[in-house]
Amino acid sequence: MNKEEIAADFKALQQEICIGLENLDGKAFFRSDEWVRPEGGGGRTNTIIEGAVLEKGGVAFSAVHGPVSEAMMKQLGMSEGNFFATGISIVLHPINPHVPIIHMNVRYFELDNGTYWFGGGIDLTPHYIVKDQAVLFHQRLKDICDRFDVAFYPKHKAWADDYFHIPHRGESRGIGGIFFDHLSDKNSNLTKAEIFNYCKTLAGSFVAIYSEQALLGKDQNYSQDQIAWRNLRRGRYVEFNLVHDRGTKFGLYSGGRTESILMSMPPLANWEYDYQPVKDSKEEETLQLLRQKIDWLSF
Amino acid sequence: MNKEEIAADFKALQQEICIGLENLDGKAFFRSDEWVRPEGGGGRTNTIIEGAVLEKGGVAFSAVHGPVSEAMMKQLGMSEGNFFATGISIVLHPINPHVPIIHMNVRYFELDNGTYWFGGGIDLTPHYIVKDQAVLFHQRLKDICDRFDVAFYPKHKAWADDYFHIPHRGESRGIGGIFFDHLSDKNSNLTKAEIFNYCKTLAGSFVAIYSEQALLGKDQNYSQDQIAWRNLRRGRYVEFNLVHDRGTKFGLYSGGRTESILMSMPPLANWEYDYQPVKDSKEEETLQLLRQKIDWLSF
Repeated sequence: MNKEEIAADFKALQQEICIGLENLDGKAFFRSDEWVRPEGGGGRTNTIIEGAVLEKGGVAFSAVHGPVSEAMMKQLGMSEGNFFATGISIVLHPINPHVPIIHMNVRYFELDNGTYWFGGGIDLTPHYIVKDQAVLFHQRLKDICDRFDVAFYPKHKAWADDYFHIPHRGESRGIGGIFFDHLSDKNSNLTKAEIFNYCKTLAGSFVAIYSEQALLGKDQNYSQDQIAWRNLRRGRYVEFNLVHDRGTKFGLYSGGRTESILMSMPPLANWEYDYQPVKDSKEEETLQLLRQKIDWLSF
Repeated sequence: MNKEEIAADFKALQQEICIGLENLDGKAFFRSDEWVRPEGGGGRTNTIIEGAVLEKGGVAFSAVHGPVSEAMMKQLGMSEGNFFATGISIVLHPINPHVPIIHMNVRYFELDNGTYWFGGGIDLTPHYIVKDQAVLFHQRLKDICDRFDVAFYPKHKAWADDYFHIPHRGESRGIGGIFFDHLSDKNSNLTKAEIFNYCKTLAGSFVAIYSEQALLGKDQNYSQDQIAWRNLRRGRYVEFNLVHDRGTKFGLYSGGRTESILMSMPPLANWEYDYQPVKDSKEEETLQLLRQKIDWLSF
């Protein structure tokens, strides 16, 4: 399987995911924006707004290529040559505070010297953490991982905990999930085709995993106070993405396509000075959980 | 004048500015939050919310000291020793889209080897740029600068244009203003006392400069579309502060006091994928002005 086939499969998956999410939403449809990268390649950024479940979301596909840039050499430690990169990236911001924000990404990278790797992951950011739902989410991810390598879940779960951390808040972004990068047959027991299959399985299971979470929350009533809390959590999401997320920062500093990179930004985020949750409230409980590293499957 | 006197004058100015802004607002009052820095010193962060003019704002004073940290050595190129830093920092987010966001900062830094410098500036971020008001703002700043050194306005205006730029958007944050750093008797024609006076004059004129701008807009009617545009511009403000602002980034990465640093964050910021203004609208005009470097005083 060559890079064109990988890109084609990712592009087809993007479309399937969008159809699945439209079914989940039941009201809004994705708008498709095809773009060309002047230096080589391009992408298709699908966005949805003002749905019944989803307030704002994006499912982006891209396949870009060209000479390794100065920024890639400097910040990613690459050597001169040509690269090819393709992937799907998703961020969904729901309306209902009882439905979590979700992020999924799978990506493939190769250099013309023959080096390649895959990366990706899924992580969940509930506005209110419900333990049973968090456990369910992690169980789904473990089930997928175990089909490929039983070492993957513990390793990629720890990687997500480490990655989706907001040091300046002393909080996790959410309940984590799995995250991996630079995965190839060189550093795993899997062949290239198997790793690709792992990525495709993750992407292919995305709609089911998110639907399961969304259906548990989307018809729950919510108050204006809970909307205010949702907006504060969206503010934290912005902080993580703009201050710490290596992908976002690299993209913005190296002249990536801003609109596609910042597709992850929420609608209506809010900030309050020195917000303190009410004692024994659901908000306090969530904050306390975000301040711990939790092994959800034995929690 | 020693560092304690500089800090005391800044702290007094903070209070005067808050009283002036309460008069301007006419409804809300500042809440004062005194904090202690475990490594030495502390501050007083005054915040205002839900006023008649100001939706969210902060006027922060701090005076901190201690050993030069690893982060300061690495990122600011300092050598080992002890530092002292004091300053006032202000960001105001008004309700009415016809009233601009404003930022002001004056600061003093010294090392125990005798090195010192002042830094600071005022810059304005109108949601809608009105040329006459932009010119007025720059004229006020030039008038202050000229009382100290006629070279200051052109130099510090260019510095602000350079600093308050959002490369990934190809836009300025607003109409700029003045910005300067590392100013001392070593690199200017002024004595230390005169530079301190320049900083105090800037801070002391802040309320008048902002009131003049706010009074021109605060009673104008606005539509929901204009609120939506205001919220998008607040999103850009967040992007600048979290992605590019060197002070914010240094503070967050080096373990500064997060709540004080992020006092600058707006209430209710919004993001839209690939927003395009209506042709010949006020929004388009503002965007076009933000994409140019403008010499406002000969515009």
